Amino acid sequence: MADAIQHSCGLVGVFGTPDAAQLAYLGLYSQQHRGQESAGICSTGGREILRRAGMGRVTDALSPSDLTALANPIAVGHVRYSTTGSCHAANSQPLLVNIGDAPVAVAHNGNLVNAGRLRAEYERRGHLFNATSDTEVILHMLADPAYRSHADPLAAVMRDLVGSFCLLLLHPDRIEAVRDASGNRPMCIGRAGAAWVIASETCALDMVDAEYVRDVAPGEIVTISERGLESRSFGAVGVRRGHCIFEHVYFADPSSRIFGQNVHRVRKEFGRRLAREAPVPADLVVAVPNCARCAALGYHEESGIPIGRGFTTNHYVGRSFIQPTQLIRDLTVRLKLNAIRDVVEGQRLVVVEDSVVRGTTTRGKMQSLRRAGAKEIHLRVASAPIRHPCHYGIDFPQHDELIANGRTVEQIREYLGVDSLAYLSLEGMLSCVTPPGDFCNACFSGNYPIPIDPGFRKDAFEQQQLRFVDAHGVLRRP
Amino acid sequence: MADAIQHSCGLVGVFGTPDAAQLAYLGLYSQQHRGQESAGICSTGGREILRRAGMGRVTDALSPSDLTALANPIAVGHVRYSTTGSCHAANSQPLLVNIGDAPVAVAHNGNLVNAGRLRAEYERRGHLFNATSDTEVILHMLADPAYRSHADPLAAVMRDLVGSFCLLLLHPDRIEAVRDASGNRPMCIGRAGAAWVIASETCALDMVDAEYVRDVAPGEIVTISERGLESRSFGAVGVRRGHCIFEHVYFADPSSRIFGQNVHRVRKEFGRRLAREAPVPADLVVAVPNCARCAALGYHEESGIPIGRGFTTNHYVGRSFIQPTQLIRDLTVRLKLNAIRDVVEGQRLVVVEDSVVRGTTTRGKMQSLRRAGAKEIHLRVASAPIRHPCHYGIDFPQHDELIANGRTVEQIREYLGVDSLAYLSLEGMLSCVTPPGDFCNACFSGNYPIPIDPGFRKDAFEQQQLRFVDAHGVLRRP
Amino acid sequence: MADAIQHSCGLVGVFGTPDAAQLAYLGLYSQQHRGQESAGICSTGGREILRRAGMGRVTDALSPSDLTALANPIAVGHVRYSTTGSCHAANSQPLLVNIGDAPVAVAHNGNLVNAGRLRAEYERRGHLFNATSDTEVILHMLADPAYRSHADPLAAVMRDLVGSFCLLLLHPDRIEAVRDASGNRPMCIGRAGAAWVIASETCALDMVDAEYVRDVAPGEIVTISERGLESRSFGAVGVRRGHCIFEHVYFADPSSRIFGQNVHRVRKEFGRRLAREAPVPADLVVAVPNCARCAALGYHEESGIPIGRGFTTNHYVGRSFIQPTQLIRDLTVRLKLNAIRDVVEGQRLVVVEDSVVRGTTTRGKMQSLRRAGAKEIHLRVASAPIRHPCHYGIDFPQHDELIANGRTVEQIREYLGVDSLAYLSLEGMLSCVTPPGDFCNACFSGNYPIPIDPGFRKDAFEQQQLRFVDAHGVLRRP
Amino acid sequence: MADAIQHSCGLVGVFGTPDAAQLAYLGLYSQQHRGQESAGICSTGGREILRRAGMGRVTDALSPSDLTALANPIAVGHVRYSTTGSCHAANSQPLLVNIGDAPVAVAHNGNLVNAGRLRAEYERRGHLFNATSDTEVILHMLADPAYRSHADPLAAVMRDLVGSFCLLLLHPDRIEAVRDASGNRPMCIGRAGAAWVIASETCALDMVDAEYVRDVAPGEIVTISERGLESRSFGAVGVRRGHCIFEHVYFADPSSRIFGQNVHRVRKEFGRRLAREAPVPADLVVAVPNCARCAALGYHEESGIPIGRGFTTNHYVGRSFIQPTQLIRDLTVRLKLNAIRDVVEGQRLVVVEDSVVRGTTTRGKMQSLRRAGAKEIHLRVASAPIRHPCHYGIDFPQHDELIANGRTVEQIREYLGVDSLAYLSLEGMLSCVTPPGDFCNACFSGNYPIPIDPGFRKDAFEQQQLRFVDAHGVLRRP
Repeated sequence: MADAIQHSCGLVGVFGTPDAAQLAYLGLYSQQHRGQESAGICSTGGREILRRAGMGRVTDALSPSDLTALANPIAVGHVRYSTTGSCHAANSQPLLVNIGDAPVAVAHNGNLVNAGRLRAEYERRGHLFNATSDTEVILHMLADPAYRSHADPLAAVMRDLVGSFCLLLLHPDRIEAVRDASGNRPMCIGRAGAAWVIASETCALDMVDAEYVRDVAPGEIVTISERGLESRSFGAVGVRRGHCIFEHVYFADPSSRIFGQNVHRVRKEFGRRLAREAPVPADLVVAVPNCARCAALGYHEESGIPIGRGFTTNHYVGRSFIQPTQLIRDLTVRLKLNAIRDVVEGQRLVVVEDSVVRGTTTRGKMQSLRRAGAKEIHLRVASAPIRHPCHYGIDFPQHDELIANGRTVEQIREYLGVDSLAYLSLEGMLSCVTPPGDFCNACFSGNYPIPIDPGFRKDAFEQQQLRFVDAHGVLRRP
Repeated sequence: MADAIQHSCGLVGVFGTPDAAQLAYLGLYSQQHRGQESAGICSTGGREILRRAGMGRVTDALSPSDLTALANPIAVGHVRYSTTGSCHAANSQPLLVNIGDAPVAVAHNGNLVNAGRLRAEYERRGHLFNATSDTEVILHMLADPAYRSHADPLAAVMRDLVGSFCLLLLHPDRIEAVRDASGNRPMCIGRAGAAWVIASETCALDMVDAEYVRDVAPGEIVTISERGLESRSFGAVGVRRGHCIFEHVYFADPSSRIFGQNVHRVRKEFGRRLAREAPVPADLVVAVPNCARCAALGYHEESGIPIGRGFTTNHYVGRSFIQPTQLIRDLTVRLKLNAIRDVVEGQRLVVVEDSVVRGTTTRGKMQSLRRAGAKEIHLRVASAPIRHPCHYGIDFPQHDELIANGRTVEQIREYLGVDSLAYLSLEGMLSCVTPPGDFCNACFSGNYPIPIDPGFRKDAFEQQQLRFVDAHGVLRRP
Repeated sequence: MADAIQHSCGLVGVFGTPDAAQLAYLGLYSQQHRGQESAGICSTGGREILRRAGMGRVTDALSPSDLTALANPIAVGHVRYSTTGSCHAANSQPLLVNIGDAPVAVAHNGNLVNAGRLRAEYERRGHLFNATSDTEVILHMLADPAYRSHADPLAAVMRDLVGSFCLLLLHPDRIEAVRDASGNRPMCIGRAGAAWVIASETCALDMVDAEYVRDVAPGEIVTISERGLESRSFGAVGVRRGHCIFEHVYFADPSSRIFGQNVHRVRKEFGRRLAREAPVPADLVVAVPNCARCAALGYHEESGIPIGRGFTTNHYVGRSFIQPTQLIRDLTVRLKLNAIRDVVEGQRLVVVEDSVVRGTTTRGKMQSLRRAGAKEIHLRVASAPIRHPCHYGIDFPQHDELIANGRTVEQIREYLGVDSLAYLSLEGMLSCVTPPGDFCNACFSGNYPIPIDPGFRKDAFEQQQLRFVDAHGVLRRP
Repeated sequence: MADAIQHSCGLVGVFGTPDAAQLAYLGLYSQQHRGQESAGICSTGGREILRRAGMGRVTDALSPSDLTALANPIAVGHVRYSTTGSCHAANSQPLLVNIGDAPVAVAHNGNLVNAGRLRAEYERRGHLFNATSDTEVILHMLADPAYRSHADPLAAVMRDLVGSFCLLLLHPDRIEAVRDASGNRPMCIGRAGAAWVIASETCALDMVDAEYVRDVAPGEIVTISERGLESRSFGAVGVRRGHCIFEHVYFADPSSRIFGQNVHRVRKEFGRRLAREAPVPADLVVAVPNCARCAALGYHEESGIPIGRGFTTNHYVGRSFIQPTQLIRDLTVRLKLNAIRDVVEGQRLVVVEDSVVRGTTTRGKMQSLRRAGAKEIHLRVASAPIRHPCHYGIDFPQHDELIANGRTVEQIREYLGVDSLAYLSLEGMLSCVTPPGDFCNACFSGNYPIPIDPGFRKDAFEQQQLRFVDAHGVLRRP
């Protein structure tokens, strides 16, 4: 999979250790799979807030001297993949502003569905916007005298946000963590000695030797300060649970425990269930590297068919630039992996994929296996067909680029060039998570748990409301 | 001079030629002496506005591919030396924003004295600020519904600005040029074939083969569009003229004609008048390179004393970094120029300087001459002693760093180590410009033509009101 | 494994297609695991030879414009890990020189054991050396009138080289490929349409859709020109076969076929044999990512113990720089992989490693598993203990840093902190390759098939004979 | 002038102060006008020799950390403009090699006319060459056992060099300075306290506060060591004096004293003599910036015509890249200087140039003056017409690009578009230097004092004998 799905964001907050920025850096590093467009850390020692951020991966975006500069007992970090907002430096997070003479830094994972409407209103009132991300709207709300006059301004703002959001707010004396009432994205709390760690995934806790304490609850505001952990609800009403099942399918690290279950285990269950739903006589189960390895193990165990290694992976993939010529077909695929001829030649293969989005990459992989001499290829996909856009933070391609959109399984099979094709059923998927009713499966079912703003389009922000631009930007007159 | 005075900004606008961006680039290049911190150009072909900007000199900030990208018939450019606002990329100009669904780019030369108060008010109302320059306040005013409801919103905003400002506003279909009612900074209009060119100095017109038409008048808004040049007054009341006499002393290029007079001629007149006010028997007149060469010629002509070349200049001065050791004294001076021993040895010299600010550099140059064997050094300064800060855009050092502040001429002479010292009188200076009463001479006299906001301090912005910060910024909690 | 072993070099040559440089680039890319210090390509269209090379990985070292410049029908490429010669740009290959008015480019994989002696002799005669690699000695021999007067100068030079070497020589009209008589490193020939491809490993042939033809034979010189493939022996005498068994253990890509066998299959056989030699009751077989996955599959199949996934891998590892603090132990390990607690907790594990060199990294991984709750850890190493240095191109650490040097298996087990430890026997290893007698196993046995020059030391070159240096070099007076 | 003449190289050596590298840096900085292609410094503390070098100007090529690394009591530096040898990093100097187990660094100013023949011979014997500069031949000679067996190897090598050369050799315990027997390039010795300083020009002595002691004599080898200064002749026979008169015309800094005379004074004498040889009635003498200012002063003094400032100079010229369009003619000229209309309008001008090579730049400057309204332009060139190539280190353009080649003065006048044109006569030039017979004037007269190797061509090296190349090089097969 993964030719088309682009990752979401990852958050980390650390409170109460001189190593806070270093731990935040490690936490971002372990969550790099959640975003590689930019990385940033803000830290504070009680008065000022410092910020360092850059484009690219954590190790490119932040230098040792950055970490030295950030040495402070409280830190918040962010890795980003753009969901809304194009690739401008102005969009790197955490965002840092002054509100009422006090600095505050904000890091955001998710996607607001009413941001466009909110922003239009602020612009009508003469506010100028700096970036193209929906996170900036939150800043304007926090600075808005109307909200600031509330007894609990943060809760008041949170109540008016619609969509998927996990937020970390860094103040000079505390960290506030917020999770939307649907619980769409994961967020967990851990302890490393006397320090508190908050992160999107538990793999970040593991990285810094922090012990898992609990998740931030949907609709909760958690405050970490010298007084320890304090909790309050921001009082959202009428919001259904909607944990993102795609975190289990593809996003989250297999070692993480999210929404109460270990990702690897859920994926293996997907594979087991798939073996029961779509058995096939074969010589060997092989996984498409690397995401489908958990599901392939499940299929192998349930089916009893031996598991093998069908591909080697190129670990050195960078930004390759080669223009494929006539001679060199399927290059994109081959740059990433190479079929092992001596393993697949003459074999009947069950090939396990985690998901299929556009289908182009999967097709290339199947051709590699075929060229390496595979006798039969039975493709088994450990999730249901993706037929609907995500409005809560996953950057699926346009509707008409989804291979499953408007095509039968037989048509897809033909396109992919395999001998048989089966998807895991949505019911099958849901039977592996608990409780099934708490999960958002809109991309499979079209059933959206969070109401969408009338006229909302995922990319509306960028197309219509771009404002301030950086050194290489462009502004269009509608 | 020039160890301490930092330059102002330079503007250029071009309308009505496919080469507009290239001409703007050349116009900035010829005005590089007005600012070397950053350079930027915005251009438009009628719908969108494109922007390219970078740090450093024009040739560093803008690449050939930038100019290719900017190829459009209307362009506005800016070179900047920070007067208010620290050295952040966010401060490079022109600034580009959307106001009421239409893009507008703004380039600014000057300094607002009421920007702090205006900004504080907008922040109170929940506006967020992006940069530290006072130019941003103008954007918020332009976006403010209260101003936008005026019959002439731009004039309404301009009326409420207090201070020194020349502005170029780029709209998709026109350029608007504004000059404050005191006429503090220069701004001229020229034609190159069918194209219009607006610039801070006429040397930019020369560079692009444009013919000088007239100056933008104090208090005038000039609009250049397909309909040609249109003019209106923005209706400022009660503002005295205040052309910056320091443009003639040091800032402007000798080839430029500003405030109705050629700069070289005015400087030569300063030198002639100085020769009359402070004659001295000597063998040779030498100029301190390169600014004082015009005045030295005037002194030579008036006095009849031969003129010579006392120094060679190092044309390759970059950012040098050498730490002076005990062995290497006066290094800063020597890196820039070198006394010609065979010229000065045994001679009685009249050394002409354009101005003396801190005095440290001038002192070093005098020591170089002494070490090269000068018998007598009679320093003649072609301007009056600088004793007061500038609030309109010249970045003089702190009050107590001005050598003339609280010192007699005799004390200064002693510090500089010369045999005699004379400054040109303020009356002498004013006798060289016409009409004398239209010139601001506050840095010499303390007589400020534009009222200063109560509590205004030149650096107030940065120290108190820093808001959004870039990747390496820091926010302080007051 | 792999904390300590540094990789060898990779070669590729392409003849007879306009895409030659692009295919060479792809061939290097697929052999990136053989060297990441530098990469370079030379190409020719019949008269001049062009060269492009840079530091780092292929995608960093060579740009699209490099490939455009290199567009020519004959090309030779090289990826390098320094075996002899420190990390200077001067050491990147292919080397390009003029010999007798004709240009020639040379790419080398291997290590000469008599290079020191040869070089000293040339220096005595007044020759100046440019780089620190032993490859340069070959150039001086090729340029030496004494060799050039031979009927077959290349063969004459090859006969006088002692050690491990695969060479590609690019002339304006042909490629010459040479492999030393012991056959220490692999080298194969393939065809892609009308074009010829020569490479270190067959995975490079796969990448460019070339069909495997045969290996270059030990002691053979293969010439590819317009006349097709021609072959001659260079007439080495008295040299035993010595295929590097460590290519099968660790170096080569699992998809490659070297020395007549597929690497994945040999590794799986190592695992099967290991399961027979060292069985243990356990719940789960897990591989140490990624190298040991083939052997783990073999162990699983032979033992019948289920195979699982014990770790997730961080695919985004760059040059990380974090200083481990007291709080963060075993950081190096954790940056690369993360134990999946839900898999290993409470389990009796068979952990399969491909080899153990220093032991520090392996130890860290075992601690990760223990911390994640593993009940028992039975470490099984799919190769024999490494006790001797390699003189033919593998950069093992100093003798006394080898964990197996002077320690019993029980002592090593204790150091690594596992419940049981077993290595595959040397006999076991050799039983998996054919014919066993043709393989060099000196690093396990101390039995060196190629005689070592008296006084030869792997790093002698750099320590004693550094000559020309690049911009940041240093020369010592002995 | 100066559109076409490219500069020579500059040398500096410092012995006997902990600041040696810093002083060498300053010495290079003050001689930057002698070469801007690359800069390098080698230093030693008695055992090893360290080297730092880079492309571009001194301040770009060498960083503060380079100087820190080079902190040692003996140092040699070099700035380079390529005379022979193209712009490769491999050509930056000093070159550092090991000869007979001892390091030596060599810096060279000049051009050898027999280098091609020497190099061909070494190549015939199998030596490989690294760079394209003729300096490398000297290294091979120094390493040659035949020379090393001499009683005085250095003297023996020097005797066999033909051409123009000043050399500095840095050994761990001493500096050796050599100047060819014709004395073609300048080289001087100074003292700064206990330290010795050797440099191409005295302006380098001034920069580091060193007192001038004497010149290195033609044919002399000076050794500076703990024993102080020692001198010997290398025994050249039959070589005529040939000081380069073009150093006085253009190369050297006006503040320097070379060949026994101050450069500024000689140039002023050129101007005085020119006024006598070619008087003209006029209103104003103006110099073409900046080189001709000395001669213009001389013309002014001798003629009694007032001197004025006709141009302003752009001090910020970098690598500009603008493509001149139809609209923008004479762009190259205008980027560098701008005529002051208020000075030249309606005036009869005597314009003084130092020399005219191709004529294109001078022509552009004359057009600028004309466009600014000059009534008459009388161009006076303070040197004779250049009609012959230089073989000793000045990079004049090809023969047929010299404006004076095959054209009468009247034809040149017409091309340049001036009302009258006069060159200083060769006799006039020689009357200003002493003794006239010791000066090389080959570029004016075609009379070469140093015999030229049969078949020698200045660029022969690069075209025929390029050997080792750097990462972006190319080798041609003849």
